[in-house]
Amino acid sequence: MKRMEHLVQRLQEQQLALPIWFENNRLKVLDQKKLPSKEEVYSFSTVNELAEAIRSMTIRGSGAIGICGAYGMFFAALQSNGDENFVKEAGALLKSTRPTAVNLMKTVDEMLTAASGSGADLIEKLEDKAIEVLERQLLFEYQLGEHGASLIEDGDTIMTHCHSGALGGSGYGGRALSVIRTAHEQGKNIHVYTCETRPYLQGARITAYELKKFGIPHTLITDSMSAFCMSQGRIQKVVVGSDRVAANGDLANKIGTYMHALAAKAHQVPFYTATSSHTIDFHTKSGSQIEVEMRAAKEVTHFNGLPTAPEGTHALYPSFDITPNDLISGIITEKGVFTAPYETNLKKELDLERILQS
Amino acid sequence: MKRMEHLVQRLQEQQLALPIWFENNRLKVLDQKKLPSKEEVYSFSTVNELAEAIRSMTIRGSGAIGICGAYGMFFAALQSNGDENFVKEAGALLKSTRPTAVNLMKTVDEMLTAASGSGADLIEKLEDKAIEVLERQLLFEYQLGEHGASLIEDGDTIMTHCHSGALGGSGYGGRALSVIRTAHEQGKNIHVYTCETRPYLQGARITAYELKKFGIPHTLITDSMSAFCMSQGRIQKVVVGSDRVAANGDLANKIGTYMHALAAKAHQVPFYTATSSHTIDFHTKSGSQIEVEMRAAKEVTHFNGLPTAPEGTHALYPSFDITPNDLISGIITEKGVFTAPYETNLKKELDLERILQS
Repeated sequence: MKRMEHLVQRLQEQQLALPIWFENNRLKVLDQKKLPSKEEVYSFSTVNELAEAIRSMTIRGSGAIGICGAYGMFFAALQSNGDENFVKEAGALLKSTRPTAVNLMKTVDEMLTAASGSGADLIEKLEDKAIEVLERQLLFEYQLGEHGASLIEDGDTIMTHCHSGALGGSGYGGRALSVIRTAHEQGKNIHVYTCETRPYLQGARITAYELKKFGIPHTLITDSMSAFCMSQGRIQKVVVGSDRVAANGDLANKIGTYMHALAAKAHQVPFYTATSSHTIDFHTKSGSQIEVEMRAAKEVTHFNGLPTAPEGTHALYPSFDITPNDLISGIITEKGVFTAPYETNLKKELDLERILQS
Repeated sequence: MKRMEHLVQRLQEQQLALPIWFENNRLKVLDQKKLPSKEEVYSFSTVNELAEAIRSMTIRGSGAIGICGAYGMFFAALQSNGDENFVKEAGALLKSTRPTAVNLMKTVDEMLTAASGSGADLIEKLEDKAIEVLERQLLFEYQLGEHGASLIEDGDTIMTHCHSGALGGSGYGGRALSVIRTAHEQGKNIHVYTCETRPYLQGARITAYELKKFGIPHTLITDSMSAFCMSQGRIQKVVVGSDRVAANGDLANKIGTYMHALAAKAHQVPFYTATSSHTIDFHTKSGSQIEVEMRAAKEVTHFNGLPTAPEGTHALYPSFDITPNDLISGIITEKGVFTAPYETNLKKELDLERILQS
């Protein structure tokens, strides 16, 4: 535990807004769903409680979920009394919480592979591995931030959509906000426009919360204002996250992203996505192969439990949309910034590397 | 009063959702601000109370405000005991409630011109004139609806933004909704996508309310979903209202309109505005001459009084935006549909007519 606490202390000294941390032998988790009105922290001591926190979306964002999975396995080792089966079952439990979260699967598998031996030996191995996962995520965000910040100029106003930030990662900046935070820390005088991101308002609730924590000047706008702000010359760059990138560079991201990309193209504002190189899916040739998930319409017809429309109003809630590659100026990853033609450039750099790694 | 009640009865038989009506010698006004959760009706018996209802935005929309001004003057005649000065002062009072509402100014001036004589004679003249104002507004909406509906095909899904409907006019359909309602009444099988229209949610609160009243199938979407819906082929036409149209056809309308117009252009979806020919302002050469009014940011950072973002978050609230004429497929008015080149076509048809009228 000592080393884990030491790492956490190091992160805190760098003023990171940790979404997850150890304190007095308990795992603390900040509830993103309650932000910004409440900074509510849950405290867990078993892998079961933690699995439930992942399942209920108290923790969101692939980086944060991955770290949570690693911490959960370390937790299981502490609980196991040297029983290797207990650790295996914990792995299966954690994986069942979000079957579509690729990073969680990978991380838990990595922890399971490392889980040999018993007693203090098992605990130490899983502690080492969990620290490695956390440090790797942190390094990813630093590297992504450095590559992305090279595109940001002094004086830029950067627009972002939804939340692609620290609370979804290690606490440094996640994806889009790592780019913004690095540019800010480089001393560039930047301003951020955060789109509120209806219907769930992640941009207002969480992105604005993080920007405030980081001391980065920002302005909240409704999603409908982006084109207008661009027409007034108020926005110099757009940086958004991504749920998935196809082999040809087509981007799946929170509903509204496509609309902002169209507006950016019309105003010649560069439009970037910040993502992990692992999000690029070579099995998906183009965005047309990605099926857009429809969610419960109540998010659209209600706000904080109160109806915004007459009772019984039918509504639509596509959770994300597809931005075609010709609207994307660059794909920022921890390995560098990729530009068009994406099909060739992404494959050249990443696909071969993966084949070599596998 | 008898004839006014008779007219109102005729309108009600046609199932119009009247925003204003006479009943038991009182003027009844539906409070648009409380929709859709409450159908709250105010009841007035003096011109002063009515002026306050206009001032406090209980009544919105140029058509409805104009009718309200006319009814108010008729009201003043009833209160005047034959005192012509009382009627003149009432006119000044009504005009002071919304100095920028051109239609209100014109209507009150028209009522003042008609206000001669005294006693029963004065009352009758103002009753006649108020009926004329109401019938003219109704005729305007029917005509605009006919012209606009000629553009709508059977099976179309029409997207609209904000509220440009019955409660802002005579109760038939206002502007954009007159087009939609006429197409529906012509037996065309149509569906409407209404954008919620952040931050004030007129599309969710009022447009969805009217569509429900009129029995027109509809779906509520957030403003950020328009481009996605178009990319899926879900939308065949866009029809929005307008605050103001410049001589070259550039359109000022509720924030978000420009963004939808860009999306429509990218997907080759025809984009129309429905407006009064009187809204076309030949003194404004282009949209660049229109200054966009900024409103209180609290509408953006709060919802129903609850904050959506951290305390102190800076926000922007441009109340409208400018859609350039090259994104507009046609301007629907009560005099017909105008197409590009707007500068020539609008002037040819409308400017000369106005010169002849003046």
